[in-house]
Amino acid sequence: MPKDNKNSFNLKTPKGTKDWSGSDALLRDRIFSTIADVFKRHGGTALDTPVFELREILAGKYGEDSKLIYDLQDQGGEICSLRYDLTVPFARWLAMNPDVRSIKRYHIAKVYRRDQPAVSKGRMREFYQCDFDIAGAFDPMVPDAEILRIVTEVFEELGWQGRYTIKVNHRKILDGVFEVCGVPPEKIRPISSAVDKLDKMSWADVRKEMVEEKGLDGEVADRIEKYVAGKGARELLESLWKDESLTANASAKAGLEEMGLLMDYLEAFGCLDKISFDMSLARGLDYYTGVIYEVVTEGSAPAVSSSAPEAQKLQKSGKKDKSKSGNLEDEDRSNDPTLGVGSVAAGGRYDNLVGMFLPKAQIPCVGVSFGVDRIFSITKARLEREKSNEALRSSEVDVFVMAFGGKGFTGMLKERMEVCQKLWNAGIKAEFSYKIKPKLPQQFKAAEQGGVPFAVILGEDELAAGQVRVKELGLEEGHPEKEGVLVELSALTDEVKARLAKKQSQTSAKADISGVTQQLEAVKVEAPKTEDAGV
Amino acid sequence: MPKDNKNSFNLKTPKGTKDWSGSDALLRDRIFSTIADVFKRHGGTALDTPVFELREILAGKYGEDSKLIYDLQDQGGEICSLRYDLTVPFARWLAMNPDVRSIKRYHIAKVYRRDQPAVSKGRMREFYQCDFDIAGAFDPMVPDAEILRIVTEVFEELGWQGRYTIKVNHRKILDGVFEVCGVPPEKIRPISSAVDKLDKMSWADVRKEMVEEKGLDGEVADRIEKYVAGKGARELLESLWKDESLTANASAKAGLEEMGLLMDYLEAFGCLDKISFDMSLARGLDYYTGVIYEVVTEGSAPAVSSSAPEAQKLQKSGKKDKSKSGNLEDEDRSNDPTLGVGSVAAGGRYDNLVGMFLPKAQIPCVGVSFGVDRIFSITKARLEREKSNEALRSSEVDVFVMAFGGKGFTGMLKERMEVCQKLWNAGIKAEFSYKIKPKLPQQFKAAEQGGVPFAVILGEDELAAGQVRVKELGLEEGHPEKEGVLVELSALTDEVKARLAKKQSQTSAKADISGVTQQLEAVKVEAPKTEDAGV
Repeated sequence: MPKDNKNSFNLKTPKGTKDWSGSDALLRDRIFSTIADVFKRHGGTALDTPVFELREILAGKYGEDSKLIYDLQDQGGEICSLRYDLTVPFARWLAMNPDVRSIKRYHIAKVYRRDQPAVSKGRMREFYQCDFDIAGAFDPMVPDAEILRIVTEVFEELGWQGRYTIKVNHRKILDGVFEVCGVPPEKIRPISSAVDKLDKMSWADVRKEMVEEKGLDGEVADRIEKYVAGKGARELLESLWKDESLTANASAKAGLEEMGLLMDYLEAFGCLDKISFDMSLARGLDYYTGVIYEVVTEGSAPAVSSSAPEAQKLQKSGKKDKSKSGNLEDEDRSNDPTLGVGSVAAGGRYDNLVGMFLPKAQIPCVGVSFGVDRIFSITKARLEREKSNEALRSSEVDVFVMAFGGKGFTGMLKERMEVCQKLWNAGIKAEFSYKIKPKLPQQFKAAEQGGVPFAVILGEDELAAGQVRVKELGLEEGHPEKEGVLVELSALTDEVKARLAKKQSQTSAKADISGVTQQLEAVKVEAPKTEDAGV
Repeated sequence: MPKDNKNSFNLKTPKGTKDWSGSDALLRDRIFSTIADVFKRHGGTALDTPVFELREILAGKYGEDSKLIYDLQDQGGEICSLRYDLTVPFARWLAMNPDVRSIKRYHIAKVYRRDQPAVSKGRMREFYQCDFDIAGAFDPMVPDAEILRIVTEVFEELGWQGRYTIKVNHRKILDGVFEVCGVPPEKIRPISSAVDKLDKMSWADVRKEMVEEKGLDGEVADRIEKYVAGKGARELLESLWKDESLTANASAKAGLEEMGLLMDYLEAFGCLDKISFDMSLARGLDYYTGVIYEVVTEGSAPAVSSSAPEAQKLQKSGKKDKSKSGNLEDEDRSNDPTLGVGSVAAGGRYDNLVGMFLPKAQIPCVGVSFGVDRIFSITKARLEREKSNEALRSSEVDVFVMAFGGKGFTGMLKERMEVCQKLWNAGIKAEFSYKIKPKLPQQFKAAEQGGVPFAVILGEDELAAGQVRVKELGLEEGHPEKEGVLVELSALTDEVKARLAKKQSQTSAKADISGVTQQLEAVKVEAPKTEDAGV
């Protein structure tokens, strides 16, 4: 215990980290449970690994990004580092558990990168990842298709209908294209990285990088342009099959076959229409060996495909101007924290990673990682525009138990406690004032601040007659139940449960993010509110 | 990406850490959600802080245990350490957020201590804490009583009815006792620590420590003995009120008054009968200023109050001998991993901690921390004895979709996918074989291994007629539905939901830990099983 009360503390969290509290924490937890529910629906089992790993486990997995790894101090004993992602710990776990030949695992946890933080864009040094991976040797593209089905379910249940695009490509097709166009083998990965920038740079800039920085022949670059412009689905695949130089390439042909299978399976899963086969998607990580995908939303990329730095846009901040635009997505671009946040989910097939730990235990894998902090920022910005009360509460309390009385009023503390006990026993979320004699307006204010939907009000005479008053808060003047209704104490919990169920079904089927966003959709056509939507 | 596939990895997790997977992870998550549900029912809001803090925030908070803090390496920039508990980060957050004058916050997260691990006893270097704290200046003992009510709700909902004891004491009473007995002021904390060992040492050994190690006058020690033997509830409080030397002491009198209030409030909360006022409870941490409490279960303390080291008992391992004892708790003491694990929850009032960060922001707090790893070990040991199938599944899949056929059988992969799509759309947890042409026995085996309760079976002729077979797995021979029932495809999801609901209501109301443990209770009177219950 400290004897010194030196007040020299630097009261902050470490750089690039933050506390999550109140409505932010609640909204984030709802996003987590929405995603976890989808994972479990597909037979996912949870894996939780230590926050730090032996340093040698992480070594050699992240290329030059290894410099971003947080190391623990050598305090005697093992040398450890904080995990950089959830994929390498999963591969380490698979290698350590040779009896597990196949698994669908999910992992929702924090990862650590000593990157330059950009808090306004949701880029932190400590941030969450939500990963789902399927490990095991199966018939081609079956688990790959299920991963993409999971991606669609997650975004549909988050209420993003029509607001997201799943770009899909295949490393084998892409590598085949590069070979056919004449890219020398040693330049395939660097040229692939350049192509990957087409979502934020114009073709002219990408071509410049290929030719001037990476020394590619200009004619080769021009041949690439034709291919990487391809976007579509079955029709794109068919046109590629007609390209004889491409189908003559072994890698491209294998990729096209797998892409065809994938589309068949996605159709059987009812989600082929959610997918965009996008030849410009290349993904940064080297370890992908098959299908790759990335989910983008309207706010993912800078608004124009110029090479202007994103920071430029972010500097133009100011009051949010609620224009009469019918499209919510076009609003507030100037200081929208979700602008340019990059993809909201990404992944692909990686068949060789486990073998890096244990060559004899080669286990093919395919998976996806959801960027929850980005998903959170976008969802929160939407809810704030709408000032959605339900979603921005900091707790989930259903009932505030309060009391009032005339002169000689004791405060009825024990009676309030007893009523709370009844409600808790029935599983109802309830709180009460911790004051012995609270004033009625204070109690109402506390309930309102917490967004609590119902009050149970104890009056001395009513309670003596075995009754309490149940009052829905926030009803308009003139509502027949504005003053609440008297209920027998013995019937209180049933009455409260019935009213909660009714209220819930009125607002949304599940009172979840999806419900809230559906309300947002409905609001699009209404006149804009005048209040400032800033925090 | 690594070019070197040197196979020199040390494939393990760091010392004192472990991976959580399969049924362990699922059971632990159920314990988390049981606890979190209780927290939310009492208006708790989530707080999530970074896993590391600036080192100066942690400095001077943990006395000599500070040597157990994990430090991050200085990689340029701030100097940080992994958090040691969740209380100091909470106090730091309160000091940083001066607009928050009161809050009920919960936090479920990992903490880090470079202690000597004892895996068999659940003592790890990385482990979870579940904390609930109420901060704010309120009328005395009201939030304190709600914390104790929360403790009872948690253990009742975990199904520990009658298996746990909540010991409660008050620092002011204890300090008053020491003063009255003649303990010099500078010896009060050391003597308090000695008293705290009475749960694992005999009075003779504790007295020896007081007199020989800590230099207390033997007569003073003997006076203490009379007081610290006190256990009970209202009757103990009344007897202390009759002790005039004690009531003449200002600290003791204030403590007795608060303890009386606490008992009144616990009565109003309907949980006074769960509490044991125990004068020997002292708690190690110095920062407690008021009521203190600790929850113990049958396995918490060594079986005898001798000074024999706990290790001695743990060495006597061996096959678990399922005797005909009627009391499950008396079994398997020799190698029970839950033996001597210490308390399963503990806490108290600490009114001065926030002021250590910001003297002007003094905020009184009271809280409790649940030792989830210990709760997990005890719960798992019980379930293993019972070989509870439901609780030891590794995923929660409801339906396995399979197909079979005669010669020319295609495998019906797309049809299985389409049926899965229907089930997923209806929110039903479903999986299928990733093989194009799986054999029927393989599919049944996969379903059985996963503990999946239902199969939906596709046959070519039946499907052509728009029908599929729904089969509950694990039915006994001769059961009228042993071979399953044919269902119209259009009615499949309703049929499956109805059967799942029925099955769920048969096994337990909530299919949670509580339900499972209730089954265990029921099993107590049955004849013991002969299988070995070891892992």
